[in-house]
Amino acid sequence: MTGEHDCSSLSSVLRRLTCDLAIQDLNARYAEALDDDRLEEWPEFFRPDGRYHITTAENIAQGFPIGIVSATSRAMLRDRIKALRQANVYEAQRYRHVLGAPRVTSQNGELTARTSFMVARIMHTGETMIFATGCYQDRIALNGAGATFAEKVVVLDSRLVDTLLAIPL
Amino acid sequence: MTGEHDCSSLSSVLRRLTCDLAIQDLNARYAEALDDDRLEEWPEFFRPDGRYHITTAENIAQGFPIGIVSATSRAMLRDRIKALRQANVYEAQRYRHVLGAPRVTSQNGELTARTSFMVARIMHTGETMIFATGCYQDRIALNGAGATFAEKVVVLDSRLVDTLLAIPL
Amino acid sequence: MTGEHDCSSLSSVLRRLTCDLAIQDLNARYAEALDDDRLEEWPEFFRPDGRYHITTAENIAQGFPIGIVSATSRAMLRDRIKALRQANVYEAQRYRHVLGAPRVTSQNGELTARTSFMVARIMHTGETMIFATGCYQDRIALNGAGATFAEKVVVLDSRLVDTLLAIPL
Repeated sequence: MTGEHDCSSLSSVLRRLTCDLAIQDLNARYAEALDDDRLEEWPEFFRPDGRYHITTAENIAQGFPIGIVSATSRAMLRDRIKALRQANVYEAQRYRHVLGAPRVTSQNGELTARTSFMVARIMHTGETMIFATGCYQDRIALNGAGATFAEKVVVLDSRLVDTLLAIPL
Repeated sequence: MTGEHDCSSLSSVLRRLTCDLAIQDLNARYAEALDDDRLEEWPEFFRPDGRYHITTAENIAQGFPIGIVSATSRAMLRDRIKALRQANVYEAQRYRHVLGAPRVTSQNGELTARTSFMVARIMHTGETMIFATGCYQDRIALNGAGATFAEKVVVLDSRLVDTLLAIPL
Repeated sequence: MTGEHDCSSLSSVLRRLTCDLAIQDLNARYAEALDDDRLEEWPEFFRPDGRYHITTAENIAQGFPIGIVSATSRAMLRDRIKALRQANVYEAQRYRHVLGAPRVTSQNGELTARTSFMVARIMHTGETMIFATGCYQDRIALNGAGATFAEKVVVLDSRLVDTLLAIPL
């Protein structure tokens, strides 16, 4: 076995590892921006034509295509944040996302990742509760400029959707 | 330093990384099958002679060898799922596992992994609660066909064991 | 492209991956020691001059420098554990940490990591609740002897600080 041969197979394994860790890093930065209330940064995690949906596992099981929230461009996500900041109807609260490891698959040059999450909500009083659980079903664009979401589908486990679901998940 | 030399040490580091990520992926697929109610796939995560135990931290501290659930082959796990589907006594509910990073150790060619978990239970009504916390203590078989569990010991933190603990953890 | 050339760029990517996984492993071992009540091992995760602080997100937002807990050496952490064992005022309870992936950055040769956490508390009766959520903001020393904390700042999301916050987080 020559160094060159060795490196060639190493190289393909390494691509896989690098890709997994890039997605893990994308997830961590995404959650951190939300938990730090840096909501203006949220749309920038998406491609310009990126899609964002929130739905429930029950909706998916019953074949309902339309979810609770649906946006089909980064511009729509920016509008959403502007409206959120102006309305400011939600009580002072913080979120804390904890995400599992992404399960990454690659098909026809497209990367998809599924990631379980739990989100705790911490009210201004300090009271803490489990606010949402579910999984992200993401399509990811990975290029020289880094990783962004081509599509993020947030599948909630619970059918009880808080009417104050204003903060992105 | 020649390319060959460099690659040889790279190669051993890479084996370690690949192994860590294979176990992380096994964990993610295992949890996803349970959370998606694809219970028939659950036994296939184990080796044919794979063992599965559920016990509590208290039991272990007191040296009690026998846990709450004990199965010593993949066939027993398949029987368990069949019985579970037929009985169908449990209320409609979903689970959501969130797992920490596995802590992997390698000894005498055997891989072991410890992984912390929280499991939320989401009732049909939408009500969500922390159902179980604990850690997986796993022995893992890694070969060309992929990673499987040679043994999985589920160590629960709480002594309050739900009598409906029918769904695998 | 020669093997040598290939390996040189592989090598730098590999350093990054190795470093990420070393920090993930440090986090996993740290949480495991606390959750297993091996508190005497806790100070050993810090450098001799390591710093440990607990504060709240609210304190940080308001620019208050002093937190709830503040220790500036490994010796202080050892004293804290001794006092804790002697006082033994806290009810029998267990903790379970679940940590997200660390977001690692490297600047001027210094490694920093931010890691989200949820901690469940399991009382002797078996009752389980979310005890604390927040993020670790860590400076990490990585050398031949392994990874240790040069500084760990525990930023709690909730202002409700349990007066029994005796167990390290």
